Amino acid sequence: MIDAVRDDADLYALVEEFFASTFSTDNPLITEAVRRMLAAGGKRLRPRVTLLATQACGGDATAHLYLAAYMELIHVATLIHDDVVDNAQTRRGVNATAVDFGNRVSVLAGDYLFAWIFKNVTASYPAPVPHILSATLADICDGEVLQLRALGDLDLPIEQYVEIVEKKTASLFGASAECGAIMGGGTSAEVAALRGFGREYGIAFQMRDDLLDMTADERTLGKPVGNDLRERKMTIPLIHALNRGEAAFRGRIGRFYDGRSDGPAAEILASIGDLGGFDATRASIATYVQRAKAALAPMAESHAKNELQSLADALLVE
Amino acid sequence: MIDAVRDDADLYALVEEFFASTFSTDNPLITEAVRRMLAAGGKRLRPRVTLLATQACGGDATAHLYLAAYMELIHVATLIHDDVVDNAQTRRGVNATAVDFGNRVSVLAGDYLFAWIFKNVTASYPAPVPHILSATLADICDGEVLQLRALGDLDLPIEQYVEIVEKKTASLFGASAECGAIMGGGTSAEVAALRGFGREYGIAFQMRDDLLDMTADERTLGKPVGNDLRERKMTIPLIHALNRGEAAFRGRIGRFYDGRSDGPAAEILASIGDLGGFDATRASIATYVQRAKAALAPMAESHAKNELQSLADALLVE
Repeated sequence: MIDAVRDDADLYALVEEFFASTFSTDNPLITEAVRRMLAAGGKRLRPRVTLLATQACGGDATAHLYLAAYMELIHVATLIHDDVVDNAQTRRGVNATAVDFGNRVSVLAGDYLFAWIFKNVTASYPAPVPHILSATLADICDGEVLQLRALGDLDLPIEQYVEIVEKKTASLFGASAECGAIMGGGTSAEVAALRGFGREYGIAFQMRDDLLDMTADERTLGKPVGNDLRERKMTIPLIHALNRGEAAFRGRIGRFYDGRSDGPAAEILASIGDLGGFDATRASIATYVQRAKAALAPMAESHAKNELQSLADALLVE
Repeated sequence: MIDAVRDDADLYALVEEFFASTFSTDNPLITEAVRRMLAAGGKRLRPRVTLLATQACGGDATAHLYLAAYMELIHVATLIHDDVVDNAQTRRGVNATAVDFGNRVSVLAGDYLFAWIFKNVTASYPAPVPHILSATLADICDGEVLQLRALGDLDLPIEQYVEIVEKKTASLFGASAECGAIMGGGTSAEVAALRGFGREYGIAFQMRDDLLDMTADERTLGKPVGNDLRERKMTIPLIHALNRGEAAFRGRIGRFYDGRSDGPAAEILASIGDLGGFDATRASIATYVQRAKAALAPMAESHAKNELQSLADALLVE
């Protein structure tokens, strides 16, 4: 078991090695932009899921490091485009030309990265891998548009929240597992099991992300606590708190989201906690972690299966 | 011949029909954004090139209407993203939230459209079509980044201008012809000939676009004359005029592009004409039109080949 763990570490080091030195596009400006974003951190969960899915099907993960890396790069490309989107908040007072030159390059860099990934995937991977990746990107964009349309919608049912999260976050985890399983030579039952794992895992992952945005300390988070609230997002702790049916709380959120009150977000966060929004979110996360692990039932026991279960357990919040 | 022409018209009507009624994505907001952009006009030159390339190889163009339509949609997706880029100029004084909400949706709509196209192409078209399209999108983005970096660079050699144009504009015309030829069952010599046609045609097309930006009337153009100049682009009429080596003209452009003079663009345009920049551009266009037609030499005579030659001749400017 100790050897197996050491092997995993080597595998992840190889993915990092790919990002740090092998990764390169024809365009130096774009290569640099992507490298900076990769160097800024990230737990590389999507590549991990891909490589473990390959191993869980009995395949050789070292043969699919690039595929694993492409999963992270799809995520990075969406982050680059999110930055264009988010510039709105930080733009004021900054030289417009510089910011807009940044926006231009960000849009083009994200587009180029998507194209570069598909160029490489269509050159090196058989059907249906290229199709899965393009369908996943369509899902991510669709989910983000749905999220935009749901901003500030206090009546958003939890089912629609889950649908948005399935598209914008879980689809890429599902595709990471599915493509890893396919390239690992998995049977169709194994491929379906691993895709199912990825999707349930991805939902739990996003719910945890929503929770940490409200409960983590700013240093760990790397951004202000309550950022989602300031962006008028409908996140799972807020939806759970609203579902308690307290009219006064609902009125307060309504005024905050309408911009009629810019009163301290910290007080709203405290109310969400008081109303049980955080506890209910922890329970939701536990449900999806359980579903992720249950999805793995058809898989034979293996070190990789155990590692996937551990990844899921690591999402649980005390 | 009259019957054949009527057939062509039917074919193009079917492409329009696809855009107007069949085209639809899962996301109504994005479908609407794309439809509006398609309804705003465009000569559908890329689909025409695809369908004529299929016919020139003896294939049935009606079997590849969707492929032809995807070529136009790639172009539309890049236009949607260009609008994000260009908002900078029209943003001032406009409600920032509305504009930024527009930016968000534009970035996502373009991304979704790219993903939707690749999803469909990977589902319905064999290798190497999906690879050609993703490599083409990478070229387009690369060319646009190179163009950004060349803004205001009065020393840009004409060879680098052509390299930028090959990537940002000609690559998609080349791919439109190449994919049409492949699906039409063309031999590798025919596929290469038609790709060559598309690339030379695309260079002439962009040069004509550069010229019309300076010489057309605003109503025909649908935007202010001299727009490229105000964006500090290095276009072919300007490069030709600079190559005449007149120090006074160079100094004037330098001040204009440095922002040290906002003096009337109309005077600069007149100088470009006086220095022979427009005439030299007409000659450059004629050269690439000639090369496009010469690229078709390996093709057997056919109505479609004649039509491609006519498309090229239509780029000539008196």
